Amino acid sequence: MNWIIEDKCFDKDRIICNGNKFLTGNGYMGFRGTMEEFTKSEFTCCNLAGVYDRYDGKWRETVNVPNGMFTTLICEGKELSLLTAEPAEHTQKLDLEHGLHLRKTLWHTSYGDISVTAERFVSLDNIHLTCMKYSVRFEKACKVVIKTGIDSRVWDINGPHFESCDIGTECQSIYAHTITNELKISVEVFERLLFDFNANETIVSSDDGIFREIEINALPNIEYTIYKYVSVYNSNDGVDDIVAAASHDVSQAAKFGYSTCFAAHAKRWKERWNISNIKIEGDEEADIALRYSIYHLQIIAPHHTDQTSIAARGLSGQTYKGAVFWDTEMFLLPFYLYTDPQTARNLIKYRMKTLEGARRKAHEYGFRGAFYAWESQETGDDACSNYNVADVFTGRPMRTYFKDKQIHISADIAYAIWETYEFLGDDSIIVDGGAEVILECARFFYSYVYYKEDKKRYEILDVIGTDEYHERVNNNAFTNKMVYHTFDIALKCAKFLECNYKNEYEKLMDKIDFKDDLENISRVKKNLYIPQPDETTGIIEQFDGYFKHEDCTLEQARERILDVKEYWGGANGIAANTKIIKQADVMLMLYLFGNEYSKTVKQKNWLYYEPKTEHGSSLSPCIYALVACETGNSQWGYDYFMKTANIDLTGESKQFAGSIYIGGTHPAASGGAWMVAVFGFAGLHIVNGEVTVSPKLPKKWERLSFSFIYKGEEYMVDITKTEGRVWKI
Amino acid sequence: MNWIIEDKCFDKDRIICNGNKFLTGNGYMGFRGTMEEFTKSEFTCCNLAGVYDRYDGKWRETVNVPNGMFTTLICEGKELSLLTAEPAEHTQKLDLEHGLHLRKTLWHTSYGDISVTAERFVSLDNIHLTCMKYSVRFEKACKVVIKTGIDSRVWDINGPHFESCDIGTECQSIYAHTITNELKISVEVFERLLFDFNANETIVSSDDGIFREIEINALPNIEYTIYKYVSVYNSNDGVDDIVAAASHDVSQAAKFGYSTCFAAHAKRWKERWNISNIKIEGDEEADIALRYSIYHLQIIAPHHTDQTSIAARGLSGQTYKGAVFWDTEMFLLPFYLYTDPQTARNLIKYRMKTLEGARRKAHEYGFRGAFYAWESQETGDDACSNYNVADVFTGRPMRTYFKDKQIHISADIAYAIWETYEFLGDDSIIVDGGAEVILECARFFYSYVYYKEDKKRYEILDVIGTDEYHERVNNNAFTNKMVYHTFDIALKCAKFLECNYKNEYEKLMDKIDFKDDLENISRVKKNLYIPQPDETTGIIEQFDGYFKHEDCTLEQARERILDVKEYWGGANGIAANTKIIKQADVMLMLYLFGNEYSKTVKQKNWLYYEPKTEHGSSLSPCIYALVACETGNSQWGYDYFMKTANIDLTGESKQFAGSIYIGGTHPAASGGAWMVAVFGFAGLHIVNGEVTVSPKLPKKWERLSFSFIYKGEEYMVDITKTEGRVWKI
Repeated sequence: MNWIIEDKCFDKDRIICNGNKFLTGNGYMGFRGTMEEFTKSEFTCCNLAGVYDRYDGKWRETVNVPNGMFTTLICEGKELSLLTAEPAEHTQKLDLEHGLHLRKTLWHTSYGDISVTAERFVSLDNIHLTCMKYSVRFEKACKVVIKTGIDSRVWDINGPHFESCDIGTECQSIYAHTITNELKISVEVFERLLFDFNANETIVSSDDGIFREIEINALPNIEYTIYKYVSVYNSNDGVDDIVAAASHDVSQAAKFGYSTCFAAHAKRWKERWNISNIKIEGDEEADIALRYSIYHLQIIAPHHTDQTSIAARGLSGQTYKGAVFWDTEMFLLPFYLYTDPQTARNLIKYRMKTLEGARRKAHEYGFRGAFYAWESQETGDDACSNYNVADVFTGRPMRTYFKDKQIHISADIAYAIWETYEFLGDDSIIVDGGAEVILECARFFYSYVYYKEDKKRYEILDVIGTDEYHERVNNNAFTNKMVYHTFDIALKCAKFLECNYKNEYEKLMDKIDFKDDLENISRVKKNLYIPQPDETTGIIEQFDGYFKHEDCTLEQARERILDVKEYWGGANGIAANTKIIKQADVMLMLYLFGNEYSKTVKQKNWLYYEPKTEHGSSLSPCIYALVACETGNSQWGYDYFMKTANIDLTGESKQFAGSIYIGGTHPAASGGAWMVAVFGFAGLHIVNGEVTVSPKLPKKWERLSFSFIYKGEEYMVDITKTEGRVWKI
Repeated sequence: MNWIIEDKCFDKDRIICNGNKFLTGNGYMGFRGTMEEFTKSEFTCCNLAGVYDRYDGKWRETVNVPNGMFTTLICEGKELSLLTAEPAEHTQKLDLEHGLHLRKTLWHTSYGDISVTAERFVSLDNIHLTCMKYSVRFEKACKVVIKTGIDSRVWDINGPHFESCDIGTECQSIYAHTITNELKISVEVFERLLFDFNANETIVSSDDGIFREIEINALPNIEYTIYKYVSVYNSNDGVDDIVAAASHDVSQAAKFGYSTCFAAHAKRWKERWNISNIKIEGDEEADIALRYSIYHLQIIAPHHTDQTSIAARGLSGQTYKGAVFWDTEMFLLPFYLYTDPQTARNLIKYRMKTLEGARRKAHEYGFRGAFYAWESQETGDDACSNYNVADVFTGRPMRTYFKDKQIHISADIAYAIWETYEFLGDDSIIVDGGAEVILECARFFYSYVYYKEDKKRYEILDVIGTDEYHERVNNNAFTNKMVYHTFDIALKCAKFLECNYKNEYEKLMDKIDFKDDLENISRVKKNLYIPQPDETTGIIEQFDGYFKHEDCTLEQARERILDVKEYWGGANGIAANTKIIKQADVMLMLYLFGNEYSKTVKQKNWLYYEPKTEHGSSLSPCIYALVACETGNSQWGYDYFMKTANIDLTGESKQFAGSIYIGGTHPAASGGAWMVAVFGFAGLHIVNGEVTVSPKLPKKWERLSFSFIYKGEEYMVDITKTEGRVWKI
């Protein structure tokens, strides 16, 4: 069982990619996998969850904080870094088991060999704390300065986000105190340094930050080690005095020492892995890729709070504005439900908290109920722009419709809340906010639907399905089905409350004045049009008129590309008028409502849509893998599983949409990989409380084993070539 | 009173423009105002009404026929033409009174001065006939060849349209017999030549056509004159033997001689002008511009047949595929109604004839009833492409929605039929086909509307109004109002038939199974949403959400242009997300339903929308002029009137949409100019059979006088500075 991700050479062109690949974090903050001597030009950043700022009318996004880990070497007056000198040897590692980032670099220099070894972790034990051990060794005697401190040259996509950055010293610590532009949120970074060799320490500060210069007359073959403790707090933390807290944390850490801090951190990781690790035997590549995916799910989740959720690019930076998308509910939630119910609850609570924002959005568009943000930040108001992509040919912003037409977002959230309630069996999810969200989502859809008198049915017009390459379509099968489901659970929800929590029911009905809409929803549900499989072919048309689009192959579409960064969607994109789709759409419907469609229908639609799918979204391959497993084609599913699980390991994903940078990690793919392993290959299903597996292991796999929690009890799953077992432990 | 349009110099850059400006025609065919020696590279063409062909999958369009008028000079072995030698003097003229094209050119050459004088006309007396008198005179003796014949180098936009072109001689005529690719329509061109000087005539033929070479040893200061008679027939003419007919026509014409042919032609023009001429005193520029507009309305109309209608660019070529647009019903019909009722009837009959095509189109899009073609050809099937504009930045076809979303076309046709019926007071228009069209259009709209339960109203979604720069909008005020009107007249129409033509009513109801839909239409009409003037501002929102678009000025929009040919509309056009509109939209509604809106509302909306209107369509300025007149601002209207009336005189109109050539004449502007003079400045109105004028002459104008026919009786209108009179004569 492998726990190590490793790169054994240094490649300048992979600096940004490795920043994602070697990410560490703890849900409160993420630290990109960059070298200690890197700064903003290498996209070094410590990204803070849930703290947003807008600067100068640009896109609102999460903030990155000054980098307390910055450390570089100055040997005989010249900086020695990966950016100034080619290394003789270089290794970058991620120890998944302990959430530990490691680097080792050797340079042959005119002053002899010089090596740097560093390890660091973003603590799981104290979410505000980051610790580093940094050692340097010289072959020959050398006059050297270790420059280390807080680098305030912050990498931003739409920054700068701090209207001020005060730096200074306090006792033995140095600090940067920053205040955001828009909401005047204070962000505090404290750094404390320890070392036990003779050196002359000077503190220097400039516009670049505040640094310690540790001058050493280094002797040959002695290891000089420094220990850095950095704490980050912000004024949304619910802590009275964040300066005192930040100062205290680094002092305490320094007092306990690196090993103790690490031990506390490692203990938390052990707890996490105990429940969430999955072992695959017979396929090392799949084994490590899946473990790596789970690692990512662990470092980005708000274990500690229900005030934030998970951004689409996790904590790897500001891509997509650090906003929360439907990814969380549809691709991430299952992992947390099965391994970390409290975090699952937190994710759901975040949507309850942002209900007011969803109401405002519905109202803004002339609807009632809750129209959730396509890109949700702390208030639930939509951070999504009407112009999300730039036209590469004209440089002009392109009108996109993610925000106003991708209405399935409200259905996704309702779906997730109901799933959480059903899985956890916890009434409080419905009673304490869940029902209100579900009903308001249903009300939104009621106010959205139209009645087509001439066809005697309700229709859902002018939407974008999950396939974003086809804009403003009518009766998208997935969307219509999800809306139907929302109506269905809204009625169930109301019934449940009425029967079991009569007082709460009456209070809620009064509060949101819902009785008429309950009738409306019930009536519309009976007559809502949902595209069905064609009687002859079995194919479900993705939306009205999809079949009339040009039948062009992916290869043909690719040949039409004029600019590698051009957007495939939009009104004039190369996919827009063809049958080429961005991602699983009908397929996602067949997965989510799998019990309502026959194996034949699934298989036919898979074969029809699969060659047409570009997988321009990392949310797509896992769904094709899941449906392939359901139709007994797990080997087809295997390739998609590997694509999903490997996405951040290989770094082979789209870096641009139009001319907008969209790089970063892909949590939804990580969640999708987990889903494929658990629901696809192991075939884990829970129906009416009965837990079963129906294994469909890929050929190579000898064994697949994992555990999960269901209604407070831990289960083990063990699948071999010959049998599949699931049992309570 | 001026009747002459004249250009007194030769400008190579205006060849194409003058081809439009000096157009002659007779409704059966149009002959561009090019010089006798010009060929396809100068866009010379004889364009045939209503004969369409598709070549090699390209756009289907009207055909141009081999040019029987071709004539050039070869002096001492060298061609002498406007293309080979700069003239010393050159005049091109159009005699509007007699529909006569004239040219006079003088060259100073090394053989002395040489002058060419030519006049030609497309006969109004025999619609198949074109006649020319061509004279040449030499200062010095000269060996000269007049090369004249049938030029088969046909200018085509989407051709070539003839799968074969046989040329030959028959008795004294030469001919070209061509057959179209698609429908195998024969087109016959015969030419007969007469001259009465000594010359040696040889007939030569090649791929370029068949020509006579008339060798003359020209003497000084003698005028050598040839007379050419060309006839054109096609196998849709309803003539048994078109070869015999064509041959016969040129023989007869030659027998009668040029003067006799011209006299017969001129007599017809006199009849036409007697009823349609308008005199403006005090403003010569306006006087000639309006007369020129009326000239155009005369040369393009199907006086002779109800099988064709008027193409958007008249008979000036193949632009817009020679197809019939809404222009005919909304901008041309009024002129014919008031001056030439039989032609008005023909235009309406054409729509009755093409009802089946409209039914097919409705069915194709999943609707019932009649969805008329946006670009209608002989069958009424839609010639409009889904990709009507090419993206100038990528060269790719752009998806446009004229065809599928500009649903107001069916309402326009219903409106026009009802107007015609009411104006002519002729029940047969309703009984013999009109009612069926109106009911089927109403049925189409019934099948198109949606009910918004949450707002308790019917809405019309996903359309393009007349402002084509905003695609796929909801509740376009103009469209909704036109649909309401269609419902209204459908109900009136049914009632009228039921009361007055019981048998025909029952037969029609049975034939089209309409009784249920009559109830449906009645119900929907009561509850159809029509955007109303805002209570505070009085402004009617052009469509849902228009007010939220960017408020940018025309100047700002123009500054954003990156390519002069770029299309302003489409999803990413520079106007699409702004309030900039292409043409009168709300304004057209206020004009058509003027009696339902107060003067204040008209004025407020004029002031609001006028600065936002680019007038990217020639259909726009006249509407602003008309509403300006209604609100007492005829001086504002004057500028727009002049813009409209002058469009083909100045040639200052858009020549490209994307990279597609859209040049040609602008019949709708000609019709619009007539409307502004008659309905705007004279204020002619007929309400309940009572004819009134309410003059609003522009400052400069001393007098405005014209006649018209109403219910078989001729009326005169005479407006002076001090009084306005209308009387029956």
